[in-house]
Amino acid sequence: MSDVRIDDLPVRDELRGKSPYGAPQLDVPVRLNTNENPYPLPEPLVERITERVREAARGLNRYPDRDAVELRTELAKYLTKTGGHPVGVENVWAANGSNEVIQQLLQAFGGPGRTAIGFEPSYSMHALIARGTGTGWISGPRNEDFTIDLAAAEKAIAERKPDVVFITTPNNPTGNAVAPETVLALYEAAQAAKPSMVIVDEAYIEFSHGASLLPLLQGRPHLVISRTMSKAFGAAGLRLGYLAAHPAVVDAVQLVRLPYHLSAITQVTALAALEHTDTLLKYVEQLKSERDRLVGELRAIGYDVTESDANFIQFGRFADAHEAWRKILDRGVLVRDNGVPGWLRVTAGTPAENDAFLDAVRDLKKEQEQSG
Amino acid sequence: MSDVRIDDLPVRDELRGKSPYGAPQLDVPVRLNTNENPYPLPEPLVERITERVREAARGLNRYPDRDAVELRTELAKYLTKTGGHPVGVENVWAANGSNEVIQQLLQAFGGPGRTAIGFEPSYSMHALIARGTGTGWISGPRNEDFTIDLAAAEKAIAERKPDVVFITTPNNPTGNAVAPETVLALYEAAQAAKPSMVIVDEAYIEFSHGASLLPLLQGRPHLVISRTMSKAFGAAGLRLGYLAAHPAVVDAVQLVRLPYHLSAITQVTALAALEHTDTLLKYVEQLKSERDRLVGELRAIGYDVTESDANFIQFGRFADAHEAWRKILDRGVLVRDNGVPGWLRVTAGTPAENDAFLDAVRDLKKEQEQSG
Repeated sequence: MSDVRIDDLPVRDELRGKSPYGAPQLDVPVRLNTNENPYPLPEPLVERITERVREAARGLNRYPDRDAVELRTELAKYLTKTGGHPVGVENVWAANGSNEVIQQLLQAFGGPGRTAIGFEPSYSMHALIARGTGTGWISGPRNEDFTIDLAAAEKAIAERKPDVVFITTPNNPTGNAVAPETVLALYEAAQAAKPSMVIVDEAYIEFSHGASLLPLLQGRPHLVISRTMSKAFGAAGLRLGYLAAHPAVVDAVQLVRLPYHLSAITQVTALAALEHTDTLLKYVEQLKSERDRLVGELRAIGYDVTESDANFIQFGRFADAHEAWRKILDRGVLVRDNGVPGWLRVTAGTPAENDAFLDAVRDLKKEQEQSG
Repeated sequence: MSDVRIDDLPVRDELRGKSPYGAPQLDVPVRLNTNENPYPLPEPLVERITERVREAARGLNRYPDRDAVELRTELAKYLTKTGGHPVGVENVWAANGSNEVIQQLLQAFGGPGRTAIGFEPSYSMHALIARGTGTGWISGPRNEDFTIDLAAAEKAIAERKPDVVFITTPNNPTGNAVAPETVLALYEAAQAAKPSMVIVDEAYIEFSHGASLLPLLQGRPHLVISRTMSKAFGAAGLRLGYLAAHPAVVDAVQLVRLPYHLSAITQVTALAALEHTDTLLKYVEQLKSERDRLVGELRAIGYDVTESDANFIQFGRFADAHEAWRKILDRGVLVRDNGVPGWLRVTAGTPAENDAFLDAVRDLKKEQEQSG
């Protein structure tokens, strides 16, 4: 029995020979590989979380608020304050990470016999969650500079008529934002073709030079904006994703959400973090300025850098990106090889972490010039 | 735009006209409708949770342990100690509630083009999660007394060849346990037919007069035991479900799990609760004795009661169960109408809550005898 393996079980055919998704979790001095916020939560927030969790723990024998009304109300206030467009509790839904938000959206609007399109390279979980929900996946095109090739994208949407269109802005792993006009044009193309749902993944929007696309929700019931507390709120360990959309979309995901999906502890921890929004957004400003510094220094060293509106930067080019990844790792810095040929991705860390990274890639550049 | 409803959106056809799953959350003095544990966590455990959450909150900017190794190790120790069969971390997987465990199992072993069978009435989320994952659902038969009709079940498995077989023991909402011989016979039938995966849902096993079926895992790689911390651990608000199975099953669900699905806060809260297992299991003993008292009293009043191995009891019969449900609610006690014709379900609460319930149903009986 000890020699039974996955493929000896009656697993679905499309899972055979596959490996679980996830970056290597290596024990390295400087970890800049998963776009985490390098700043621990401020101590007053830690205490506030502790206080609210103590209270919630006393009622932990009861199921949590199934509809997470208080949390959705506070998320709506945050979006209204920062997003340039008023939204209410009825426009907002929350789940265990934006991955679960997207899974619920695909269970409601994708699934067997339906398809979704994304413009790749992009956040690879979109395609994986499509596979996990039985949704067919269409890989849409990008230009050389990683902007979306609008004409080709419109053509793909018109011809393939996907049920769901993913637009990630700022895009991961490339870092660049999508122009609002492009999003609007793709929304129009999607409505003409089907109509389809358009999911704008704004996981990194707080780091952008530009504004959220939240105002586009006005008059567009097939548009969904997806967000997360993992990055700007410095709470990757919390797993709190959310969306803003027409109330009918919120009603629709409630048909597929697992009941009581969001624990009482998660709800109060997120609520505590939302009380400290102003402090947390100050860290975002620091990270944006470090990000801009990294872009400048990388270019000065001689690397190509994709325009970044995120808390990470795509840099290259390398004849062999995986070898370069390993050589940077040898120098004590873990960056990410997302499988984009010629390019690597680095997360903006603390100033000291970024200096360590810059030393490593400066050294690598020197080595390559000497051998080249 | 305000008049856009779910059915105006491009939702999947099978969701049209549906309502979200969930018991009414009503504000009533005595709530015995969702099989919650009535005992709040003991204060030393609340403090331990607070302590561990404080520590975890300090690292919340980092992603959690994706594989939840410490938590799975401690769950394995708990199962080994209480389940009569040694299991290790490699046999155990955890997720946000047993609902998510079951969703992951169906994503790996069910899904489009595949089917699952359950013997109804049973835990209705099995069928709903099947729908949510695109898995075809087969409703298997039970006898009049709510035991599984083995001959009919074997025939259904042989003919329909489901990919997944659900067995809930103790069964919800009926309360009765399934005999180990029946589970073994169904496992054999499932292997002969396909072979299929057999999921034994033991959410209420700690309340049973009998033992866990954990020892059956030996030599049966297609068997999965599903568990939860919601009931015996008094932690419905935590949302922590888990499974025990052959390591290959654990490998398989990792192909479909959303990465970092289990928050750092959830992991440490569950770990804290596992430190207090002995105390929590003492509450289970109290609840078992209250459950037995309720069974006796209900029979003395003149109700029919299904044998119960759970922390709840199915009682009847009513000409109109929903009317009886409303009349008990009018008397300040919320029980559950699970849609089983003629029957209602009551959760064993504190002695005072159970007394209030018994008063209500005694009164109802009197009213019905006078009008009848």
